Amino acid sequence: MIAVVATIRVQEGKEAEFEAVMKDLAEKVRANEPGTTHYQLCKSKQGPTYVVLENYTDQDAFAHHTKTSYFKEASPKMGACMAGGPKIEFYEVIG
Amino acid sequence: MIAVVATIRVQEGKEAEFEAVMKDLAEKVRANEPGTTHYQLCKSKQGPTYVVLENYTDQDAFAHHTKTSYFKEASPKMGACMAGGPKIEFYEVIG
Repeated sequence: MIAVVATIRVQEGKEAEFEAVMKDLAEKVRANEPGTTHYQLCKSKQGPTYVVLENYTDQDAFAHHTKTSYFKEASPKMGACMAGGPKIEFYEVIG
Repeated sequence: MIAVVATIRVQEGKEAEFEAVMKDLAEKVRANEPGTTHYQLCKSKQGPTYVVLENYTDQDAFAHHTKTSYFKEASPKMGACMAGGPKIEFYEVIG
């Protein structure tokens, strides 16, 4: 299984818009992706930074996630709220 | 619910020792902490760095986790493998 930690800084004042886009995306991911076993939107306690904690059964499941119509639709809406590019880190789940 | 992302850099050559300590700890956490709903050891694909992805029902459950006898026992063993201090980030799970 793999884990992805996506860290996203959002522009001041864009938090509510960003959260709405991401909550809608998270619902669609959970409804449509059996290979995505964990997909959790988390807000930092220290400012307008979010992480999405994600688990996929394998690399193919992650690739599928990024190619879905709803992910492609959400991406520019996320981008409009961000302060800089996201940081995407990949891990192997080992325990 | 809260999320904790603990990022830990390990000394070169200490990976196996660190993983053994952490896998033992993770087993004990899962067996003994109903308030710890997710506790996952992940290894970076880019070098000797690990993250532990953690969910707790609330701040009290996290406090309880850090006070258990097995956590206190594992802590110096983890420390002996680390390259510098851990980075511990706290989040609110919102979606």
